[in-house]
Amino acid sequence: MYLTQALHRSVQHHPDAVMTICGERVRTFADVADRVAHLAGGLRELGLGRGDRVAVLALNSDRYSELLLATPWADAVVNPVNTRWSPAEIAYSLNDSGSAVIVVDDVFAPMLSILRKECPGLRATIFCGDGTTPDGCIDYEDLVGRSAPIPDARRGGDALAGIFYTGGTTGLPKGVMLSHTNLVTTALGAAASRAVFRSGGTLLHVAPMFHLADLTGWNVQLVMGGTHVLLPTFDVETILQTVERHGVTGLTLVPSMIQMILNHSALEDYDLSSVESVLYGGSAITESLLKRAMEAFPKTSFTQAYGMTELAGLATFLTPEQHADSERLRSAGRSIPHTEVRIVDSGGAEVPVGETGEVTVRGGQVMGGYWNRPEETAAALRDGWLHTGDVGRLDKEGFLFVVDRLKDMIVSGGENVYSAEVENAIASHPGVAACAVIGLPDADWGERVHAVVVRRPGVTVAAEEIRDHVGTLIARYKAPRSVEFADELPVSAAGKVLKRQLRDARI
Amino acid sequence: MYLTQALHRSVQHHPDAVMTICGERVRTFADVADRVAHLAGGLRELGLGRGDRVAVLALNSDRYSELLLATPWADAVVNPVNTRWSPAEIAYSLNDSGSAVIVVDDVFAPMLSILRKECPGLRATIFCGDGTTPDGCIDYEDLVGRSAPIPDARRGGDALAGIFYTGGTTGLPKGVMLSHTNLVTTALGAAASRAVFRSGGTLLHVAPMFHLADLTGWNVQLVMGGTHVLLPTFDVETILQTVERHGVTGLTLVPSMIQMILNHSALEDYDLSSVESVLYGGSAITESLLKRAMEAFPKTSFTQAYGMTELAGLATFLTPEQHADSERLRSAGRSIPHTEVRIVDSGGAEVPVGETGEVTVRGGQVMGGYWNRPEETAAALRDGWLHTGDVGRLDKEGFLFVVDRLKDMIVSGGENVYSAEVENAIASHPGVAACAVIGLPDADWGERVHAVVVRRPGVTVAAEEIRDHVGTLIARYKAPRSVEFADELPVSAAGKVLKRQLRDARI
Repeated sequence: MYLTQALHRSVQHHPDAVMTICGERVRTFADVADRVAHLAGGLRELGLGRGDRVAVLALNSDRYSELLLATPWADAVVNPVNTRWSPAEIAYSLNDSGSAVIVVDDVFAPMLSILRKECPGLRATIFCGDGTTPDGCIDYEDLVGRSAPIPDARRGGDALAGIFYTGGTTGLPKGVMLSHTNLVTTALGAAASRAVFRSGGTLLHVAPMFHLADLTGWNVQLVMGGTHVLLPTFDVETILQTVERHGVTGLTLVPSMIQMILNHSALEDYDLSSVESVLYGGSAITESLLKRAMEAFPKTSFTQAYGMTELAGLATFLTPEQHADSERLRSAGRSIPHTEVRIVDSGGAEVPVGETGEVTVRGGQVMGGYWNRPEETAAALRDGWLHTGDVGRLDKEGFLFVVDRLKDMIVSGGENVYSAEVENAIASHPGVAACAVIGLPDADWGERVHAVVVRRPGVTVAAEEIRDHVGTLIARYKAPRSVEFADELPVSAAGKVLKRQLRDARI
Repeated sequence: MYLTQALHRSVQHHPDAVMTICGERVRTFADVADRVAHLAGGLRELGLGRGDRVAVLALNSDRYSELLLATPWADAVVNPVNTRWSPAEIAYSLNDSGSAVIVVDDVFAPMLSILRKECPGLRATIFCGDGTTPDGCIDYEDLVGRSAPIPDARRGGDALAGIFYTGGTTGLPKGVMLSHTNLVTTALGAAASRAVFRSGGTLLHVAPMFHLADLTGWNVQLVMGGTHVLLPTFDVETILQTVERHGVTGLTLVPSMIQMILNHSALEDYDLSSVESVLYGGSAITESLLKRAMEAFPKTSFTQAYGMTELAGLATFLTPEQHADSERLRSAGRSIPHTEVRIVDSGGAEVPVGETGEVTVRGGQVMGGYWNRPEETAAALRDGWLHTGDVGRLDKEGFLFVVDRLKDMIVSGGENVYSAEVENAIASHPGVAACAVIGLPDADWGERVHAVVVRRPGVTVAAEEIRDHVGTLIARYKAPRSVEFADELPVSAAGKVLKRQLRDARI
């Protein structure tokens, strides 16, 4: 199994069908394969050989998609860089991965002077933007145009395909090593579930491609042989225009993006009836949001995904049919065809159905480990099971209910408090727009439950009112002992609240 | 990826659903998993460890299905034995594979005395039949009942899952080594194509399970989490009864089996409307047969598969929609999601679209090699491509037209004659029931085209008439120089004519 295989297959089946749409640039599968062969030849001429790392620091584009294919074609390894990170964090990941080449676009070219200084291992810089190629950079189109095509290395199986840095919410960034088998297994398993994009559809990319949340959609769509429409940033008006213009059939979103789309004033001006499926993840969807989404997208089926970078994106799906049950709607769905999910206690033993423990996952998509981090790898991978760090339980039909991040669990007065449960209680107050619950050190209780709350505009709810509201819903000891108000919460690229950052700032 | 994973998943999702139906025996997924854990414990107690081979010589049954799961669960390797072979051929494959244990049913128990003598490596014999357990055999149910369950070894990836002997039509039997990744990739890729069995359906097994033709269906159905109904032999009346009784939704057949079902006098007495999909392979279907089949199975979609043991069963599918085109109906369809197909010349170089050459296949399902046969392995596997030994061409949309077996191609007077083309011409004569065309040594022509013809009952067509008929359809030099008549043709377990046998008997 190798990532480029699906490209060859599409070229054989429908060479003249459209593979990528990026602004006004439209390219067929035959075009893209030809360009990828040339680009891979260019990478080879830059001295890249087996297993060398190529970093990509850019917003979504058709060239990003080509790079994801040209890198393995040249027998190299891709390192998609988190575009939300600071230069220092990016430099850390480039040095840690030993990236030899970096590809940047217009937005990130200004960062090059710092990166070149901080990352002595960088041998070459490629500019894949649309503006003027900066000094010292190789122009992407020039490289494609001037380089002789090379045959596809067609390496696959357990060979490394990419290093994906993660860790926005916990600790230092770690490079997740995903093999060709990991990525292709995810794509085949997702397609086998029949819950997502059909063959030949058009997928719109609005979330950043460096993150598995979007890259998983790209990966499945690649195997299904469909069209990718690439937008550089998340902008609701542009999304609505693009859906209508290109007859988009599939979208990958997080619930907060769905909410933003639904809240847009011009929503009803656009024809969204082409959308057949929306794959969303990162968190569960509320019944009211789903109902509104189903009204706005009349012909769309919704699938929830639960996964993480270490799982090449996926472990479970809540399929469209399963969205009909309000109890199941609170779950993350069930293991997909290539996956086994098990809940274990702190000693690693499986717990009975219904009991809470750490979510562990096994299957062909489980990462090989963290790049150069044998200790973290050994902690996360035990006997082939990935320990996700999530706390959850399974019901008697295998539906997974994720209760909390293990690291976000608060131990107060000897009792486990799941921050997500407290957050749900707080969020149900009509005056609350968003909230995060963290544990802060406390001399009496070990940790105390602390809430950071963003109020709805114009609302003046007080801390005591929130504590009282929570007290009517869950046990008193779980209610926040302290409440503070903020204008917004810090979030990661995947839309997750950065609790570590909140906690660090308050200790 | 590991073969037993899908069993664990089904137990988690629907423990009380029916997994196997065999005569009056009905077992749920939870039952089967429990029995498999005990059976694996029994195998372990017999001294079987990592990679040891367990041979199964039996007709289809629920116990056969359990053995396919218990063997990897115990970290051993399964060797499904060809039930059509002579004791000498079976003994050869047992010795070649070094099988330590053999499992037999009532039908094959009488062969044990020979096998025990010829195969000194056999340490134990298990009887999985329904009759009285023969002397010297361990009773299957007794072993399940008395052995403590063991945890699933959960070995997977490139570890060997089974050795599948092949070679009925050409040369000495060779053991095809299939890994867990090979088998699970086939199942995921087939499911991802959406052309076969849906989740939760009921698959009827009527072809022998030792052969990938049926085992592939078992494998896909395992991943889809559906029910298996197992029939020991192919009997049309029983098939019709079973379809009606159990509401069978899927069948795996070869076209000759479809023909036999359609020809059955009591066909119209049965309700076959539950059948949703038929997967057939081994040869293309004629338009007239397909039309009759679609009348008899009104709610059924037909999918053709092309594959072989070395490909864990599959390389291409002709999907139901593609059956609508009469030109494509003569093709084997297109590469499935995990597969790349390429036509090469004798030097291994890819030929242009439309040109004929050897069919080669690449993907996660390609075997690791032939057991203990480095030379044959090197000849079949070159740079990761399996050389199928089939001659074919691709059209400009990637549809594969298999022209002939490379070994069945006749070189007469310096010209390539594809036996399949001549057979199609002969078969179009109304007096011909079946035929096989082979090359026989000839002093003048190198090889001469020879036809073995089975006439329709009561028809007295002569050799010259057949030669004349063929001459009106294809070039004269392709017409058989000699024609003989026979009562029947020797066929393999997969329904393929044994041309080697025909040829050897005439040289």
